[in-house]
Amino acid sequence: MQIGIIGLGRMGGNLARRLMRGGHEVVAWDRGPAAVEAVAADGAMAAASIEDMAGMLASPRIFWVMLPAGEPTEQTVAMLGMVAASGDIVIDGGNSFYKDDIRRARTLATRGIDYVDVGTSGGVWGLERGYCMMIGGREETVRWLDPIFATLAPGLGAIPRTQGRENSDDRAERGYVHVGSAGSGHFVKMVHNGIEYGLMQAYAEGFDILKGKASDKLPEDERFTIDLPEVAEVWRRGSVISSWLLDLSAAALARDHTLEHYSGHVADSGEGRWTVDAAMEEAVPAYVLSAALFARYRSRVETTFGDKLLSAMRFGFGGHVEIPQ
Amino acid sequence: MQIGIIGLGRMGGNLARRLMRGGHEVVAWDRGPAAVEAVAADGAMAAASIEDMAGMLASPRIFWVMLPAGEPTEQTVAMLGMVAASGDIVIDGGNSFYKDDIRRARTLATRGIDYVDVGTSGGVWGLERGYCMMIGGREETVRWLDPIFATLAPGLGAIPRTQGRENSDDRAERGYVHVGSAGSGHFVKMVHNGIEYGLMQAYAEGFDILKGKASDKLPEDERFTIDLPEVAEVWRRGSVISSWLLDLSAAALARDHTLEHYSGHVADSGEGRWTVDAAMEEAVPAYVLSAALFARYRSRVETTFGDKLLSAMRFGFGGHVEIPQ
Amino acid sequence: MQIGIIGLGRMGGNLARRLMRGGHEVVAWDRGPAAVEAVAADGAMAAASIEDMAGMLASPRIFWVMLPAGEPTEQTVAMLGMVAASGDIVIDGGNSFYKDDIRRARTLATRGIDYVDVGTSGGVWGLERGYCMMIGGREETVRWLDPIFATLAPGLGAIPRTQGRENSDDRAERGYVHVGSAGSGHFVKMVHNGIEYGLMQAYAEGFDILKGKASDKLPEDERFTIDLPEVAEVWRRGSVISSWLLDLSAAALARDHTLEHYSGHVADSGEGRWTVDAAMEEAVPAYVLSAALFARYRSRVETTFGDKLLSAMRFGFGGHVEIPQ
Amino acid sequence: MQIGIIGLGRMGGNLARRLMRGGHEVVAWDRGPAAVEAVAADGAMAAASIEDMAGMLASPRIFWVMLPAGEPTEQTVAMLGMVAASGDIVIDGGNSFYKDDIRRARTLATRGIDYVDVGTSGGVWGLERGYCMMIGGREETVRWLDPIFATLAPGLGAIPRTQGRENSDDRAERGYVHVGSAGSGHFVKMVHNGIEYGLMQAYAEGFDILKGKASDKLPEDERFTIDLPEVAEVWRRGSVISSWLLDLSAAALARDHTLEHYSGHVADSGEGRWTVDAAMEEAVPAYVLSAALFARYRSRVETTFGDKLLSAMRFGFGGHVEIPQ
Repeated sequence: MQIGIIGLGRMGGNLARRLMRGGHEVVAWDRGPAAVEAVAADGAMAAASIEDMAGMLASPRIFWVMLPAGEPTEQTVAMLGMVAASGDIVIDGGNSFYKDDIRRARTLATRGIDYVDVGTSGGVWGLERGYCMMIGGREETVRWLDPIFATLAPGLGAIPRTQGRENSDDRAERGYVHVGSAGSGHFVKMVHNGIEYGLMQAYAEGFDILKGKASDKLPEDERFTIDLPEVAEVWRRGSVISSWLLDLSAAALARDHTLEHYSGHVADSGEGRWTVDAAMEEAVPAYVLSAALFARYRSRVETTFGDKLLSAMRFGFGGHVEIPQ
Repeated sequence: MQIGIIGLGRMGGNLARRLMRGGHEVVAWDRGPAAVEAVAADGAMAAASIEDMAGMLASPRIFWVMLPAGEPTEQTVAMLGMVAASGDIVIDGGNSFYKDDIRRARTLATRGIDYVDVGTSGGVWGLERGYCMMIGGREETVRWLDPIFATLAPGLGAIPRTQGRENSDDRAERGYVHVGSAGSGHFVKMVHNGIEYGLMQAYAEGFDILKGKASDKLPEDERFTIDLPEVAEVWRRGSVISSWLLDLSAAALARDHTLEHYSGHVADSGEGRWTVDAAMEEAVPAYVLSAALFARYRSRVETTFGDKLLSAMRFGFGGHVEIPQ
Repeated sequence: MQIGIIGLGRMGGNLARRLMRGGHEVVAWDRGPAAVEAVAADGAMAAASIEDMAGMLASPRIFWVMLPAGEPTEQTVAMLGMVAASGDIVIDGGNSFYKDDIRRARTLATRGIDYVDVGTSGGVWGLERGYCMMIGGREETVRWLDPIFATLAPGLGAIPRTQGRENSDDRAERGYVHVGSAGSGHFVKMVHNGIEYGLMQAYAEGFDILKGKASDKLPEDERFTIDLPEVAEVWRRGSVISSWLLDLSAAALARDHTLEHYSGHVADSGEGRWTVDAAMEEAVPAYVLSAALFARYRSRVETTFGDKLLSAMRFGFGGHVEIPQ
Repeated sequence: MQIGIIGLGRMGGNLARRLMRGGHEVVAWDRGPAAVEAVAADGAMAAASIEDMAGMLASPRIFWVMLPAGEPTEQTVAMLGMVAASGDIVIDGGNSFYKDDIRRARTLATRGIDYVDVGTSGGVWGLERGYCMMIGGREETVRWLDPIFATLAPGLGAIPRTQGRENSDDRAERGYVHVGSAGSGHFVKMVHNGIEYGLMQAYAEGFDILKGKASDKLPEDERFTIDLPEVAEVWRRGSVISSWLLDLSAAALARDHTLEHYSGHVADSGEGRWTVDAAMEEAVPAYVLSAALFARYRSRVETTFGDKLLSAMRFGFGGHVEIPQ
């Protein structure tokens, strides 16, 4: 198929390449000319602007927006609302908040434009491994776009098949799923990232405990100095907690045993927070997902005002002195 | 009554004074002669050693041990097991682990010595306010010691009486309670401290949120610069969250609006940890009490190895760079 | 002063009575005629409608809205935007979301109407104890309303004064504080309720641990059957964790030792959730406040789908059977 | 090699079979004769008792104990301390608490008997997939046992190798690691299980949020009815959160879309609790691992006393009625 890709950063550029390798025709635009040239060198047709792209695509046109969530995506979708025609399709492949998708789909529908949201997982590995996609939008439209998704997805590969799926939709097994109406794709991707935070924090705490076992505050005969790269590696091999995140941990530890090259000031994107928001809207207890999020906040500050208040209270009732030297 | 007090630090010294003010006769010892002299100046009889104290007390002798939990208390109780005679009473008024009490009571009982554990709350304010006491030991012994507890406790004071207690034991209203057999006093005191951690952390987080509302990362029309000392004060006045810990917070904030004199490296004594242990032994979910404990651990380190692992994983799957400058 | 009160439920009715006792003149309206009659019997002037109330009040008119947050308050404020005139004051004394206040204040300002938000704590006890109030709005307006707030607040009473406040605004000591611009009053009240959840959960977990200590799953010599009403009472007396919530707990336990008359299905109003939202907007770690909220969600369901998934995974890797009988 | 296996349950029986398939000679005993016969039918030599086993093995004898942690293992190891001779090796392949290992190793060493602890992961899948093993004990002994471990482990298999391990010990890549002195194997396995709890809870909460998105309490245009088996499957394919636990979840959901056959009353073995204990001993914040443990406790009761206390407090301050119908 023919597709226009807007935004050629780490994700968008590789997406374009994977599509071209799969035989699709890509028209590419980015506000940075160098990014356009790089993708053009790999076979894409370079557009000079979004309007230009619209002129280069045959109807019905497919625009795939791959930009940071928030203002960049919002403004581009708004512009496409003016540039696109009835029957065209706007895809947001970024990390938009799903309520924005619901609103956008409703707005574009008034002009006959279809809106599809695609939560895309796979990060920098997607070009080779393929992308796992969670898709929201109208059934008919998503079916029509199937060749695009089939190319981007990992495919069956070597992953063992799940028993009992014989009569199920095989798209999930090939790495993409049509979840429901617009917004549902990003909703599922959002929860995916919320889970990701929780998984990561579970490993982080576990390795912290392994490392802390060498502390000289412990009784001498209860101390162990544990080789963390070895443990991470062995857990990849037949243990219950093997996972891709563990693979990455093992690789990081193999390169840098003490992780001294990492700051430990851990950023969070919107999804972790939105997941906790969704949990609260549904009255679902999300102890672990929220704690994982808060651990990131805490990692980015040296001390909190709350900690100081604890010190102050302890001084107040017990005369305990916790005063900086 | 006549009572020997071993350990004349902040707690033991004031305890001795409050007892003497209440008409009791105190024999005092501490390994630091200055502490003994100070209490002797207020009317106590100075003992030169624990053996000396034993000689000075009339039978049945009452020994009140007021020392740091762990080795100091353990060794002193062991020594009293040799010095005391059948019929004597050993009281541990410190913060011992309740399972140590159970063991000690059993050991001393073989020699006819009674063991009473008293969880004592009140901190540096106890001399004036009185001490809140949670007592474990044999019914008969605790009854016999009643004049001691009655003097140390706050008494009815100005605190409004709880309706529906007309036919209850009035000792609780006067500030002390006989919980059960040996160990139960310290068990209740332990849980008291566990709750204390949770309460403190709730206030800490709340004030953190109030303070953070001035952050310039928020939209300009959603920022408030909130006067924290004023808020702490007003909450003392008819709000649902008024408490003694809030009184202390208000006092600290009145003195030092930004709490800049406090380090925010918050210590924990054993009770918070033991409370979580007890919860786990009973399979009771203790989300808040454990989180409050962990917040203290986290307050004492700049970064954790776990945080670095999170950075490393994020770099691994997304190319996110969280590397120290 | 003269004031119109809209909404005469538990809170509004008592508010009206306390104002009248303080010498203010109250015009009252509620959609339920019985509520109006009850307050009129205590001296208020009954209005037949909001428009009627507007006609009965002298300019500048003060309207105090005391309705459930959400639609009831929203619609009433919108109607007042039409009924009120420039110079009039609309007060929302309920539990509105502070961002709604910011928006309403902006809208009403275009018509010259002042908006004041008052977070009101005190519950069913406010008539006697007075109300603790956190106020947002324009400085001049809040000053002008001072006689109203002074009457509603508890006043200095018997609560010991905080040292170091000699040169501070004494309104906080009398139980009300002007926090900042519109919305800030409800923001502080919201955090107050968030803290309230945390405090309550800390006590809940502590009493759970005390109660669980009688479990016959524990070794026999480590079990204690603890008299919870006695412990709650004694902690009110000189302990570090004394508080108004503890007073209420002691009273509840004195009446009903096993709390068998309570369902344990714990509701939450919006404030707990909004507090966690605010924490996330500010990137403040709020482990305890969020866990307290989630415990309420969990209390209202028998089992969760997540729990079933845990059972299913355990069966998957270990053959562990957790299947309903 | 020749090895005696004591305990032929789900784990021990398969372990014996995998060893025999690898060419080792197994002498087997279990207190249940049927279990012995089953393994004997597959080629093992049946022992009539532990003493009998000792007589059948050549020196130095290897005893692998594969029994439930606690009393069964403790008593068996104690008996082996009497039956075994200097130079013999006792292996505990179960889930013992690592401090018990430290003690046992010390005791057995006085008689010249070597003690090795092996944390074994792999569950019911180990016979086919191989077992991931974390080993504690003396270097020389562990080296000598290498053929046993090499057979039980999964081997390199199809799992991609971690870059940067070229000069590392390749045992980890084959699925077993010698961690350190006695106890260290079970310590690492314990933390493995602690992490497992955290990972499982992260998925559980995420799927709960997906499922809750269909709730009719949400605004109609924000509801999605999400096909959970499809989502679980797609996440296995190129997403960041792919893992073996997710594979199991997908399989369970494929079989039983609503998981109605699972009770959701989730058991916990000792390791989760011990992991939190270890975190507390090391002062490591373990928010997520502890919350995951507590969620299991909570899953097993309908309501808690703490929940009732919350209801009681809410009634106390607000007149909120949470009373069972």
